[in-house]
Amino acid sequence: MRTVTKDNITDVFMGYFGADADPRLKEIMLSLATHLHAFARETKLTHAEWRKGIEFLEWAGTISDKERHEFVLLSDVLGLSSLIDMLHTVPGGTSSSVLGPFHITGAPPLAFGGDLKGDFEGQVLLARGRVTDMDDNPIDGAELDIWQTAPNGLYSSQDPDQDTYSFHGIQTTGPDGRYGFTTVRPVSYTVPTDGPVGEILNAAHRHPWRPSHLHYIVKAEGFRPLVTEIFPDDDPYLDEDTVFGVRADLVMRYVEHPAETFPDGYALSGRIDAPYLCADFDLKLVRE
Amino acid sequence: MRTVTKDNITDVFMGYFGADADPRLKEIMLSLATHLHAFARETKLTHAEWRKGIEFLEWAGTISDKERHEFVLLSDVLGLSSLIDMLHTVPGGTSSSVLGPFHITGAPPLAFGGDLKGDFEGQVLLARGRVTDMDDNPIDGAELDIWQTAPNGLYSSQDPDQDTYSFHGIQTTGPDGRYGFTTVRPVSYTVPTDGPVGEILNAAHRHPWRPSHLHYIVKAEGFRPLVTEIFPDDDPYLDEDTVFGVRADLVMRYVEHPAETFPDGYALSGRIDAPYLCADFDLKLVRE
Repeated sequence: MRTVTKDNITDVFMGYFGADADPRLKEIMLSLATHLHAFARETKLTHAEWRKGIEFLEWAGTISDKERHEFVLLSDVLGLSSLIDMLHTVPGGTSSSVLGPFHITGAPPLAFGGDLKGDFEGQVLLARGRVTDMDDNPIDGAELDIWQTAPNGLYSSQDPDQDTYSFHGIQTTGPDGRYGFTTVRPVSYTVPTDGPVGEILNAAHRHPWRPSHLHYIVKAEGFRPLVTEIFPDDDPYLDEDTVFGVRADLVMRYVEHPAETFPDGYALSGRIDAPYLCADFDLKLVRE
Repeated sequence: MRTVTKDNITDVFMGYFGADADPRLKEIMLSLATHLHAFARETKLTHAEWRKGIEFLEWAGTISDKERHEFVLLSDVLGLSSLIDMLHTVPGGTSSSVLGPFHITGAPPLAFGGDLKGDFEGQVLLARGRVTDMDDNPIDGAELDIWQTAPNGLYSSQDPDQDTYSFHGIQTTGPDGRYGFTTVRPVSYTVPTDGPVGEILNAAHRHPWRPSHLHYIVKAEGFRPLVTEIFPDDDPYLDEDTVFGVRADLVMRYVEHPAETFPDGYALSGRIDAPYLCADFDLKLVRE
């Protein structure tokens, strides 16, 4: 009889794979089992702790739906999502950052100069820049998928008072590679704390805050898609983002402009009655 | 600004814990994050592979309910459940083995000599033995929670044609520590393959079979609860249990008895019209 022991179980596990199983699958599963088994051995994980882990996963499954992605959030707060971003960063291109659990597909088109703010209150932010290749050449037809929270710190999918695509839009660049839109200044917010991930943060005596940011997914033919976020340099949570999303090159500075001089070509053109902020940020894509 | 990199992210993660967080929680989370991060680095896990992992977990969450426990099954086929059993085995006591995802609470009492077979067809099995301490002294009032599949290879919770507690019962020992009941010979069966765990097994070209077994949870005051299974030595899957549950001391031999001589004191007492099997197995508990 083959004797399975606490010392040989990882080898026995690998022995169960068919000879013709996909080599990459074998590589991933070997690494996963090796580390999972080492984790259990190192901590001498008890049955009660294991059961707690299973209940955690079942709860995460129950609370997840089309709009809430607790397993993504778990990956985010464990630093796994950010690590994977960093493992695939190409020097010279804009860094990627966590997608987060709140992206939704199918956002409506947003023309150059368009507005995401609508009737929401808050300081006006003019976000603009260029989408370029690594040699600074503008990319024509790049698609910028933009999303952020409302001033209450909630994404539309978390907030029954917002329309589905509130603070979501997709802008396509022209030959000059430029993008530009108006919105309100994003706010710092907490990740959802009413589920199992919140319970972990709480047990760890760890805060659930993220620094304020704008989310972008940038796609262009012939280039690697870029999932990223940009952060203002004055946010109090910049040094302790609970999902580890901040990268040095994703930090920008808001420039305040006086009330009356809003640039032409924007939906909010002309005179506005309060100072506004401007975020200039170029996005550099890496060729495929 | 604190710069998070692929090399320091595990340290940054640990730095987020509050100084007064529970030391055991910190120990477990440090080990978990260290191994999870090492797994991602070693495999240079891609975003697409990560997404597949997230979809896997979400699917496991969706398919799970009060009666189906896909995360337990995942832990089982990865060898984690068995490893945890083996890490806490006390030499001299009966080995523990995987609980599996099909135990249900609240099974009805089963008197000594009682029958689990009911109207089901199949070779009669007489299962019996003693519950003792490590010095072979019988344990009075030990509670034996028994469950197994029907002859079709399905547990009651998987099979709409069975009653809730079909092939489930709880027997309590008397002063002699003896247990005994009749049933049908359990069959080898496959773990559920219609969910994400089945997809992994399939992709790994790995079979989903378990050798046939009886499940026992044994509880007695002053002793550690024992979750275990017993396996006949002639099962073709004994050497390759897909959930790694077989231990040398849990393997027993069926002894065949002729048709007419069924022992007294059992519900099936007297003459029966086909040869039956007898499984003698003592269960040794470890003091708390």
